[in-house]
Amino acid sequence: MKIIIVGATGTIGKHVTSALEKEHEVIKAGSKSGDLQVDISSPESIERFFEQVGSFDALVNTSGNGHFGPLGTMKDADFRIGINSKLMGQINLVLTGQHYINPKGSFTLTAGILTEDPIVLGANLSAVGGALEAFAKAAAIELDNNVRINVISPGVVAESPHYFPFFPGHIPVTMDRVTQAYLKSVLGAQTGQVYKVF
Amino acid sequence: MKIIIVGATGTIGKHVTSALEKEHEVIKAGSKSGDLQVDISSPESIERFFEQVGSFDALVNTSGNGHFGPLGTMKDADFRIGINSKLMGQINLVLTGQHYINPKGSFTLTAGILTEDPIVLGANLSAVGGALEAFAKAAAIELDNNVRINVISPGVVAESPHYFPFFPGHIPVTMDRVTQAYLKSVLGAQTGQVYKVF
Repeated sequence: MKIIIVGATGTIGKHVTSALEKEHEVIKAGSKSGDLQVDISSPESIERFFEQVGSFDALVNTSGNGHFGPLGTMKDADFRIGINSKLMGQINLVLTGQHYINPKGSFTLTAGILTEDPIVLGANLSAVGGALEAFAKAAAIELDNNVRINVISPGVVAESPHYFPFFPGHIPVTMDRVTQAYLKSVLGAQTGQVYKVF
Repeated sequence: MKIIIVGATGTIGKHVTSALEKEHEVIKAGSKSGDLQVDISSPESIERFFEQVGSFDALVNTSGNGHFGPLGTMKDADFRIGINSKLMGQINLVLTGQHYINPKGSFTLTAGILTEDPIVLGANLSAVGGALEAFAKAAAIELDNNVRINVISPGVVAESPHYFPFFPGHIPVTMDRVTQAYLKSVLGAQTGQVYKVF
């Protein structure tokens, strides 16, 4: 399979890349690194990206930013950080990518535990995650040619201890479990699912 | 209580208004009608709206647009209709309104059944609903002064038969049940809840 991994050099992306590139052609994409660059917050950049890549069998996105800060001082512009990057970035990878993906291909997006288990400072990421999960369920019933879509929702990962203070009482999840969820989505046959790794 | 109802002349809003105005001071707001006008897709309009209203005890929003159309031809600009109106409109009513609301006040937002029970053409509204539900859960743990927030998620309502063809197999819900959910949120004491009326 020809598999695009957007965010291939990130904390999660590098593990998913490593697991898939043994047996598949992996195109590593990132905002600054990788084989090809794409700024997912820009629909035009995404359009140019797919024109370069051409047809493909699977796209995994592990990239995207959100705003992390107190609700009490949050403004529209803060909230738009997650809307424009982690949310619309991933939505636009699907809206544009659906015109390039091969039959029986798959999209695998990334949300997170904050959708259902919120923490202080995380309202923007909660909203973004909730939108992605519902979008995947809805897109799954409309994608043509048996194209699939799933969302991975990881808890705080063991390799990111700098986040632990913001997740009191959360049990960190191993990168191996997280990676397996991406493989399940790409190499399995389910669609419209949220794979919770927490 | 001083209760703001944004969308007070809409299908749902007029019933909620009618139920609450018997015993409360209700400020009816709408994009074009009502006591005061507010364009929820504009953060500046929301800011000016609260400056006019001043302090209040409860805000109910039943307004907001989304894009309804096929995923196969959906573009970033289509998707932004729901993002800018039904999603960021309601988020900004909370982000700005939190600085005007009285202690123990409440915000009641509106999502919908499509968050978890998608239909063809509804991907934008599914995503917007998912974001609102997760946002309410997250905001509930950060709002100060015992201010509450809940989301109502109605099914297709019996008073909107023109929507029925798009909701095959859905059982329409009565406006009375939907109205009661809003009353439960405004007059009750729970927070961070999604009241599903379907």
